[in-house]
Amino acid sequence: MEDKSKTYRTSLTPLSFLERSARVYAEKTAVIYNEKRYSYRELSERVNRLASALKNNGLQAGDRVAFLCPNIPAMLEAHYGILQVGAILVPLNIRLSSTEIKYLLNHSGAKFLFVDTEFSSVIEPILAELETVQHIINIQDLSDGKPLKGQEYESFLASGNPEPFSFHVEDEEATISINYTSGTTGNPKGVMYTHRGAYLNALGEGFASQFNSESVYLWTLPMFHCNGWCCTWGVTALGATHVCLRKVDPEEIWKLIEQEGVTHLNGAPVVLTAMLNHADRPKKLKKSLTITTAGAPPSPTLIEQIREIGAKVVHVYGLTETYGPHTICETQNHWADLDAKEQALLFARQGVAYVIADPVRVVDEQMQDVPADGKTLGEVIMRGNNVMKGYYQNPEKTAEAFQGGWFHSGDMGVMHPDGYIELKDRSKDIIITGGENVSSIEVEQAIYRNPAVLEVAVIGVPHEKWGEAVKAFVCLKEGAQITEKELIEFCRNEIAHYKCPTTIEFTTLPKTATGKIQKFVLREKEWAGQQRKI
Amino acid sequence: MEDKSKTYRTSLTPLSFLERSARVYAEKTAVIYNEKRYSYRELSERVNRLASALKNNGLQAGDRVAFLCPNIPAMLEAHYGILQVGAILVPLNIRLSSTEIKYLLNHSGAKFLFVDTEFSSVIEPILAELETVQHIINIQDLSDGKPLKGQEYESFLASGNPEPFSFHVEDEEATISINYTSGTTGNPKGVMYTHRGAYLNALGEGFASQFNSESVYLWTLPMFHCNGWCCTWGVTALGATHVCLRKVDPEEIWKLIEQEGVTHLNGAPVVLTAMLNHADRPKKLKKSLTITTAGAPPSPTLIEQIREIGAKVVHVYGLTETYGPHTICETQNHWADLDAKEQALLFARQGVAYVIADPVRVVDEQMQDVPADGKTLGEVIMRGNNVMKGYYQNPEKTAEAFQGGWFHSGDMGVMHPDGYIELKDRSKDIIITGGENVSSIEVEQAIYRNPAVLEVAVIGVPHEKWGEAVKAFVCLKEGAQITEKELIEFCRNEIAHYKCPTTIEFTTLPKTATGKIQKFVLREKEWAGQQRKI
Repeated sequence: MEDKSKTYRTSLTPLSFLERSARVYAEKTAVIYNEKRYSYRELSERVNRLASALKNNGLQAGDRVAFLCPNIPAMLEAHYGILQVGAILVPLNIRLSSTEIKYLLNHSGAKFLFVDTEFSSVIEPILAELETVQHIINIQDLSDGKPLKGQEYESFLASGNPEPFSFHVEDEEATISINYTSGTTGNPKGVMYTHRGAYLNALGEGFASQFNSESVYLWTLPMFHCNGWCCTWGVTALGATHVCLRKVDPEEIWKLIEQEGVTHLNGAPVVLTAMLNHADRPKKLKKSLTITTAGAPPSPTLIEQIREIGAKVVHVYGLTETYGPHTICETQNHWADLDAKEQALLFARQGVAYVIADPVRVVDEQMQDVPADGKTLGEVIMRGNNVMKGYYQNPEKTAEAFQGGWFHSGDMGVMHPDGYIELKDRSKDIIITGGENVSSIEVEQAIYRNPAVLEVAVIGVPHEKWGEAVKAFVCLKEGAQITEKELIEFCRNEIAHYKCPTTIEFTTLPKTATGKIQKFVLREKEWAGQQRKI
Repeated sequence: MEDKSKTYRTSLTPLSFLERSARVYAEKTAVIYNEKRYSYRELSERVNRLASALKNNGLQAGDRVAFLCPNIPAMLEAHYGILQVGAILVPLNIRLSSTEIKYLLNHSGAKFLFVDTEFSSVIEPILAELETVQHIINIQDLSDGKPLKGQEYESFLASGNPEPFSFHVEDEEATISINYTSGTTGNPKGVMYTHRGAYLNALGEGFASQFNSESVYLWTLPMFHCNGWCCTWGVTALGATHVCLRKVDPEEIWKLIEQEGVTHLNGAPVVLTAMLNHADRPKKLKKSLTITTAGAPPSPTLIEQIREIGAKVVHVYGLTETYGPHTICETQNHWADLDAKEQALLFARQGVAYVIADPVRVVDEQMQDVPADGKTLGEVIMRGNNVMKGYYQNPEKTAEAFQGGWFHSGDMGVMHPDGYIELKDRSKDIIITGGENVSSIEVEQAIYRNPAVLEVAVIGVPHEKWGEAVKAFVCLKEGAQITEKELIEFCRNEIAHYKCPTTIEFTTLPKTATGKIQKFVLREKEWAGQQRKI
């Protein structure tokens, strides 16, 4: 709790970022969305309207407000307006089904639900089953969206007051957002973020991606994912410009990069792969562009493609439970002396903790640090200001995740002699074949080196003799051709034979809303009726 | 107090910055000093040795350790080694007299005193009068320095342990440094900094000057001044390189900028003026250089000179009580459309609070905000994480400074319609002549526009009829010539006649250790025997 008598202490809160930019950069463009342009003054006024309208409609501190909305201005406004009231933002993944959304709304106990009309049809069937939602606000961004019964966003804002909304953050450890994990097994868990954690992580993103007031940030990463890695706050902190993007579409992305002078964007490698394999990709960018990527290690091929067009890659790693990115693969001066392949291998590592984070560890089952030999597998664990407060109304899972005073990521990795971590897999992504541990990531990296391959996912499939066998699901580039036999042969030249796939299926890959390949979908199919923790 | 059971909370402390850089940038150059090069591993080992040696010699948490030392590696090491023990660093201004130093040592109750042998002669006469100092450590950087009785720094380090020193910051609001103000009237006051404040301000400097791991920072600003504006910590945070500098010497500065590839330096305008008027100034710099300046508004001439050589100027403002810089004159895109003179006027303003600071205010005597009209004079007040904890063992002065829950800077300024503050003067620097308030800064800026002028200080002097008259003390550039009459005439073309000096004295100007012109020295002489709050 903050001692208000202290002249020398103010609660850390990301709300201070918008307050400052609205003051300092009042007339500067804060948000670009299609033809719309909001200055920081206008953004702030819209946020104040949202906060006061919510308050007028009975929202109280600690209440939850859910948003089912793509990367449009309303979603950014939610990150400030709701918090100003002292309430908690619950961003919902727009790819979820009605049943899943129903669970999240009831579990979070959301009092307000804001829905982009594209997703009315997701809500409509569950309306009668929502236990706590009292108000629905329709966000009518698409002209053809069919609204639910309830107010419309712009008229809701119009009912509010644009004057500065007086807020006071008494406890910097109060919850500001609940981000539900995708929950591939069991029920989704609600990851709680605090003012303090979000403030520090936003600054951390600022240093990692080197934002400044000249930056123009394109929203290729969903804001509903870890509050957009806290860039909803971090970009605002530096008085930079947000470029909203309703839908990830490579053509639109390249157009906006050119047209709006985009300097920064974030995305999983699959999003970047789609961008870089698109016909509109320029040969050379006219302006500097920093692409920060996470979710999977960028393949050497991808890194090369990004550098070819003159962009800079930043490789980071984290989880929903760590406010998004938590480690960064800081580049070292002496890497410049290595050849491109060696550099790419070093750069594919997840790296070291952010400036604002505590050191990460890789530990064995007794929570002892594994040797820093780049070989011994252990679990990656974290703690500190950039670790979630806990899972909302789930003390059991919270205690489990926080065993021994550290957050257990469930990611398996090694510690290199230079202190950089490298993920080898989610524990469930390790394939055990004939008693050997095979890292599915390693096999994927090998297959990615083949120029015909666009995307690949490797899993273990049931095998009578070996327990599991290695299987690859491959999506080829447009027009590319290669046979299963040729690709397996290619692999055998790259990695140990026992690690190579025994079968390859050419197909498209199932993905999450944030572009992560959903291996569990592939596994479910392969393991149907058999025992494996998917 | 930190709750250690919280996985999601770690105390904010600048100690984490060195811990991280020693891990991440182990073999990178952390410190350059003449022929010496310390990697981050070596710096960290030296710091660990310092901490353990201090502990072995009886230093305990909360104890004070004084350093009388220029900008050499030992001074940087002090900023970590002492804090690791939980003790408090007391940096001493190397220009102070024996009597002044005696007061600071006794007032702070320093247990250890580290002295660069250049300053042995300052300590020697007061040795018998030091009430609390138990250990003296001589820093033998100069070959001809005569040590006092006590250990030598390098052998003291050798007695310590280079292995990681285990530290734990339980309370992030614990005091880490006491920085004494120069105290132009009354006794010096000991400004207390905390872990939390220093951590946040260090990050703030990172954003203000845009540090990254490639930065090379030249120590033109004394480390004993606000802990080098917290750059002792901020430069380390980003894994950048410190270039130590024993003495501010323009020739040496230009040599180091070229030789070591310096990208950043900080200094008061007088230091920059000396640099830019030196024969070794290059026509164009080969590498980008950011010069962050505070202490007085940079004159339009100075800004132009800096830009001419291809460097970037950042104008910041603060006080010892605000961890050094607290506001920054953020540049706005639309300023580019204005002519150079208008731009310079906007840029000479002190600006807006740092990203990590609370908004600053300009208030009248009832602590009401003055109108944001750029005209109404008021006092600049601050609060928040980047305001000192208080004055050490001086509750009375602390209460006085913190009246109404805000820190009273004593600086008089205006609030412009765009939310930028502009200092008009320390309250005592306002000249009241014939009932009119004259800002001495405004008169100085006018005189600076004359190309013959190197430096100027304007004060009020006693005048029978008008109460005070305006007097200027001017130091001309080498070889330049201008008469008193000509310069007054020049002034009358620039500003209102009543603001122009009635007398001008050509002389050299008295300065503080940090290069600030000491107007009180000039005033003391002029007001000898008369009533004025100097």
